[in-house]
Amino acid sequence: MTDPDNGGLVGVWLIGARGSVATTAITGAAALRDRIVAPAGCVTESPEFPDSGLPEFAQLVFGGHDVAETPLRKRAEQLEHAGLLPRGLPELVSADLSAADSRILPGIADSEQHHDRQELVAELVRDLRSFRQTHGLARVVVVNLSDTEAPHPERAEHSDLRSLRRALREQRQEKVLAPSSLYACAALLANCSYADFTPSTGARLPALDELARRNGVPYAGSDGKTGETLVKSALLPMFSSRALHIRSWSGTNLLGGGDGRNLSDPTNVTSKTSSKHRVVDESLGYPVDGRVHIDYVPDLGESKTAWDHISFAGFLGNGMTMQFTWQGRDSALAAPLVLDLARLLSRAHERGHRGALRELGFFFKDPVGLDEHRLPAQFEMLRSFARELGKDE
Amino acid sequence: MTDPDNGGLVGVWLIGARGSVATTAITGAAALRDRIVAPAGCVTESPEFPDSGLPEFAQLVFGGHDVAETPLRKRAEQLEHAGLLPRGLPELVSADLSAADSRILPGIADSEQHHDRQELVAELVRDLRSFRQTHGLARVVVVNLSDTEAPHPERAEHSDLRSLRRALREQRQEKVLAPSSLYACAALLANCSYADFTPSTGARLPALDELARRNGVPYAGSDGKTGETLVKSALLPMFSSRALHIRSWSGTNLLGGGDGRNLSDPTNVTSKTSSKHRVVDESLGYPVDGRVHIDYVPDLGESKTAWDHISFAGFLGNGMTMQFTWQGRDSALAAPLVLDLARLLSRAHERGHRGALRELGFFFKDPVGLDEHRLPAQFEMLRSFARELGKDE
Amino acid sequence: MTDPDNGGLVGVWLIGARGSVATTAITGAAALRDRIVAPAGCVTESPEFPDSGLPEFAQLVFGGHDVAETPLRKRAEQLEHAGLLPRGLPELVSADLSAADSRILPGIADSEQHHDRQELVAELVRDLRSFRQTHGLARVVVVNLSDTEAPHPERAEHSDLRSLRRALREQRQEKVLAPSSLYACAALLANCSYADFTPSTGARLPALDELARRNGVPYAGSDGKTGETLVKSALLPMFSSRALHIRSWSGTNLLGGGDGRNLSDPTNVTSKTSSKHRVVDESLGYPVDGRVHIDYVPDLGESKTAWDHISFAGFLGNGMTMQFTWQGRDSALAAPLVLDLARLLSRAHERGHRGALRELGFFFKDPVGLDEHRLPAQFEMLRSFARELGKDE
Amino acid sequence: MTDPDNGGLVGVWLIGARGSVATTAITGAAALRDRIVAPAGCVTESPEFPDSGLPEFAQLVFGGHDVAETPLRKRAEQLEHAGLLPRGLPELVSADLSAADSRILPGIADSEQHHDRQELVAELVRDLRSFRQTHGLARVVVVNLSDTEAPHPERAEHSDLRSLRRALREQRQEKVLAPSSLYACAALLANCSYADFTPSTGARLPALDELARRNGVPYAGSDGKTGETLVKSALLPMFSSRALHIRSWSGTNLLGGGDGRNLSDPTNVTSKTSSKHRVVDESLGYPVDGRVHIDYVPDLGESKTAWDHISFAGFLGNGMTMQFTWQGRDSALAAPLVLDLARLLSRAHERGHRGALRELGFFFKDPVGLDEHRLPAQFEMLRSFARELGKDE
Repeated sequence: MTDPDNGGLVGVWLIGARGSVATTAITGAAALRDRIVAPAGCVTESPEFPDSGLPEFAQLVFGGHDVAETPLRKRAEQLEHAGLLPRGLPELVSADLSAADSRILPGIADSEQHHDRQELVAELVRDLRSFRQTHGLARVVVVNLSDTEAPHPERAEHSDLRSLRRALREQRQEKVLAPSSLYACAALLANCSYADFTPSTGARLPALDELARRNGVPYAGSDGKTGETLVKSALLPMFSSRALHIRSWSGTNLLGGGDGRNLSDPTNVTSKTSSKHRVVDESLGYPVDGRVHIDYVPDLGESKTAWDHISFAGFLGNGMTMQFTWQGRDSALAAPLVLDLARLLSRAHERGHRGALRELGFFFKDPVGLDEHRLPAQFEMLRSFARELGKDE
Repeated sequence: MTDPDNGGLVGVWLIGARGSVATTAITGAAALRDRIVAPAGCVTESPEFPDSGLPEFAQLVFGGHDVAETPLRKRAEQLEHAGLLPRGLPELVSADLSAADSRILPGIADSEQHHDRQELVAELVRDLRSFRQTHGLARVVVVNLSDTEAPHPERAEHSDLRSLRRALREQRQEKVLAPSSLYACAALLANCSYADFTPSTGARLPALDELARRNGVPYAGSDGKTGETLVKSALLPMFSSRALHIRSWSGTNLLGGGDGRNLSDPTNVTSKTSSKHRVVDESLGYPVDGRVHIDYVPDLGESKTAWDHISFAGFLGNGMTMQFTWQGRDSALAAPLVLDLARLLSRAHERGHRGALRELGFFFKDPVGLDEHRLPAQFEMLRSFARELGKDE
Repeated sequence: MTDPDNGGLVGVWLIGARGSVATTAITGAAALRDRIVAPAGCVTESPEFPDSGLPEFAQLVFGGHDVAETPLRKRAEQLEHAGLLPRGLPELVSADLSAADSRILPGIADSEQHHDRQELVAELVRDLRSFRQTHGLARVVVVNLSDTEAPHPERAEHSDLRSLRRALREQRQEKVLAPSSLYACAALLANCSYADFTPSTGARLPALDELARRNGVPYAGSDGKTGETLVKSALLPMFSSRALHIRSWSGTNLLGGGDGRNLSDPTNVTSKTSSKHRVVDESLGYPVDGRVHIDYVPDLGESKTAWDHISFAGFLGNGMTMQFTWQGRDSALAAPLVLDLARLLSRAHERGHRGALRELGFFFKDPVGLDEHRLPAQFEMLRSFARELGKDE
Repeated sequence: MTDPDNGGLVGVWLIGARGSVATTAITGAAALRDRIVAPAGCVTESPEFPDSGLPEFAQLVFGGHDVAETPLRKRAEQLEHAGLLPRGLPELVSADLSAADSRILPGIADSEQHHDRQELVAELVRDLRSFRQTHGLARVVVVNLSDTEAPHPERAEHSDLRSLRRALREQRQEKVLAPSSLYACAALLANCSYADFTPSTGARLPALDELARRNGVPYAGSDGKTGETLVKSALLPMFSSRALHIRSWSGTNLLGGGDGRNLSDPTNVTSKTSSKHRVVDESLGYPVDGRVHIDYVPDLGESKTAWDHISFAGFLGNGMTMQFTWQGRDSALAAPLVLDLARLLSRAHERGHRGALRELGFFFKDPVGLDEHRLPAQFEMLRSFARELGKDE
């Protein structure tokens, strides 16, 4: 591992910095730094993960945007009460929570979306630059953890950087970009790497890809793979390596918590179910029957239950089935991946990687630049990338 | 693929040749040869499998031993009635079934186990040689598909070939070898490759390994991985690549059919549950709570239902669970693997491989010579071995 | 039981007479009459069911309407092939199937729905009267087994018989009644009892209830309770008798077959999911979170799989869950209930019952005239009604 | 309800008074008395339960025997930490916990079992009498909540009271009675009613039944029905009322906590699995395939997960299955039933009931004096008994 004294500080700027995932990630990073907890769930801390020169937890400085105003300390106590954070932990790391909270600025509220977009982006860029300068950060990673947006309409201006710049300049009142893309654009302009942990558009536009490559900044996404889709990506290669033909794959996801509420809006959920579907069809190369449902069930709280039913044919057409039930806690599954992504993006940025990092596809339901959805293959790609990052310059 | 005209005929000698798996394999091989059915479930026929110079289905000649006397044609009709074989298929391939049936000899009955073991082995060797000569076979593969034996006590004579030979010669009335090992010993002596699809001892003794290497014969085993353990070996690497800590893994298997009846004997089942357990502990490198049950439930007929409950810990100690139910038809899952193994062993034998073929571990719950239980890694080993087999000599 | 010689013949007129349920019911009635099969699934044949003077299977004469033209014998063979009917049974009862088939008339096709409704009803009445006269039937029961309709808009004319009659007479081109209600109206006018095995409107209009009572005819409905809802109605009283508070009840139904295809139409499915919901809310007396999904998954064929997730609170607010998976064959569950209903309605008609038979609520998801959804209470009501039917006149 | 001022105090003497169930019951009774929590899980507090003149929670005085020495307050904090008791509740009712704790005496330790049995019983009788006198209790109910015993061998002396008395007098060193029966015997001698919440023998011996009837004391048992068996008893009448033939019923129970550890002892578990089995066979009247497993899985803590697989046949022999997973917290399910039983037994005693109370079978897996295992019928029996108890004297 790198020497924390030499590596400098790394900023982690979270969009949605007071949500469950962000609160869990910030609390957990402090606990890991102080070795209060074991690093379960952190891919980059696992013994089988190559030494990659990643920043230590002690080097991470958290800040972010959020429209919510409940302080991080209070949010952490709520999560402690819900059983997501260990009893007593928020108190143990309360100084860290307060410090991070003081670095959270108001995000783009819905009401502001009619404002001058160019000016909004400029403001976000100023926020990020000020964060870097104030804390003497060697690099900053921006991670989008905010609510899933409704799908944003495609526009001609998205196709190249010049058109996008002109549109932002000239059509100031129009929704040229989705909020997630405004954040991504600001991150790339401010020379920060960017990851989209949601299925929102974010950096996934040709114009923004051009910007990332031109500015020498890497980005990754989309849609953190934390539960049902994770299992799918592990089971799909099992079926295909055994030449078992999948006939249908149906899934129902019951979600409590804020994510569930947001996804109960039928337009927002479209972004999600379509990235969940793609995994099956793209992996198998043939269309498969079955639908994916996402239901909001408030009493499940921070928990999520997914049931999947897979029907498949084996030798001589014999029909068989597999079902699974996954009972996970989404924030606990997502938070360590946010830390993994921040550390990997920071290191990749340091090593000169730019544009879409397909090698981080292991973390995502809908990996940018990658058709490979099989988890074992994605893990091999990730490990080989990590070994590369760890080599002496 | 090899030219069937040039490759010569390959014998497939099945111990338990009138059981469900054997009947399904023989029926299926004829159907595949005639392209009546798609090759679902056949690993070596999948488009993603490398060209390996394997014998075609048309080159396979089936025979075997069995203590049962119900003709294959009749057995196939029973399986057709149970829905395991497609309606009408047994009639379509009835000539093949009759031909194979005429090549089935009585196996070692329980009553004979007190006979002179040396003589038994000699008799089996004569059977195999006669099969090869009568049909002009280039090579013969012996596959053990008979009922799971009770664990056989270890003996000093198993440690090297010389001691074993002496014991067979001098202690003719004693149970020096389990029946599966008598078959394996005969196969190796007769220059036939050998695979054990059951958890019985078979060729897995130092003395028999020595014999295999000395005679230039490859062997593989043990215990075909067809259901619950297959899923385990796909899920285990998912958990470990995500650094999720498995706390307990419990399983219950409900089996109808002959396999279930045999395993309802508490001594026989020991061989099975212990190889099922090993997969979890050996893969993770730490002990995991939980038991595996195998229950005989006659009304399930040719079907098998397994329920597994996995409890695991993620970030900050959050406890979560996954459950799965696998509803499979064991004979339909096993039969194509028997064909895969026969073809691969024959080709490996042809290419000069000898001793334990760890590269075939993908097919087994308890792979000989291999600590790697993760399905994706096993599949890569298999494919790379297959590519090697396919190279020009 | 009544003496078949004395009881006279009873007509069973099925709307959708060539569908899976009807074909299974007709085939099964013949098999039961000839004692080829055990009466599993027939409530009225169970030893614990009171002797009620019901018509014997030998007294039943089947006929019906259907727009489909595939002969019953052919449909039965398809169901035999799908494993729903025992091998060989269609052949054994082929004379019965041909006879019933010859009594099937074309139903109301979609194209005819713009026709003069008054005339359509008159035609259906003539069909039913002719059926009764031709076969010398003592009574006729009409059972609607056709596809679920989209919900039919309420109209002022539905509120009393006089208004309905006037509307039918004067607004001949308008859709005054849904097709199911045209059939119900015709049945009641022709003095036939009527049951709706679907969630369609059928006889459930004040005007038709008035007609039934005036004509002295009983009717029953709606929506046969065959799977998920059956289990719900058995589990709900368990939770409430133990004072366990249900927080959410979510369900996903995967259906193959024609029923699944029809319900994959979003407007048709509304009728179904709303009657499925009602059971929970009405039984508990408080609103419960959770949705019900019905998905069409063609490869499931004649099978149906439902997964339900129930979250509940016990002592001191402890949250717990129960999940169940029901893997049923809908036609096999529905067909014997159709026979039960036909026999019970015929006997109730004979004994002078008229109007809605709430005592048959045991058979339905949305029982007409009954708020009681708890299966045990419904079964007691049914048994006490049956004992009443069995008393000497 | 009775007026707490008039009804007098009722003692609840718990064998195993510091276990999870007892601690939860004592804590919960105080919380219910103070109306801090809703009475979820309490059958006798449900709105649909008849007014029966039961003692109020304020009238209950807790005491008991236990070999464990951890104070109740400490145990309650452990259960609070495990999430079984609401945060803060142990502190709110700490005075009640301390008071109850001061009334707990050392139980019969294993080491004492070789002592003079007659003397042991006399000592227990003195403990119970002293409890009643010290606190001025109108009545005392003894409830056995201790670990399940190994099955106790039947002895001739169990058949009548006179023989039992002689054996206790003359064979002082012999294990004439199991510990649970020593407690039951002492309870009945001391004129306390008795309930066995475990499958241990307790009062279920002809000699003790004679004693109960002679002394005018009621008793109830055995083996509280809290999870898998509860669901069984609700589903069994569903299958039988629909004439669906159950072919096999298999179950696996994964238990953490002390109960799991105790039941992982193969001899103790026999008492449990056999009472679990009986429910299916006795309800259906025909033997059903399938086994019940109970596994100890420590990481499940206070939780229990049961998976059941039911295979059944419907119309024309169609095979279908149902599976369920029950994820419960055993102490939270058991504790309110202990309160229900104490209140009902006290009232029954007051109203002059004596001997086995079959009307309380609703609460038990193996109800004494009752062949009826169907939950709905048991609930009706209970309610009618409760109405009787509530009538004016």
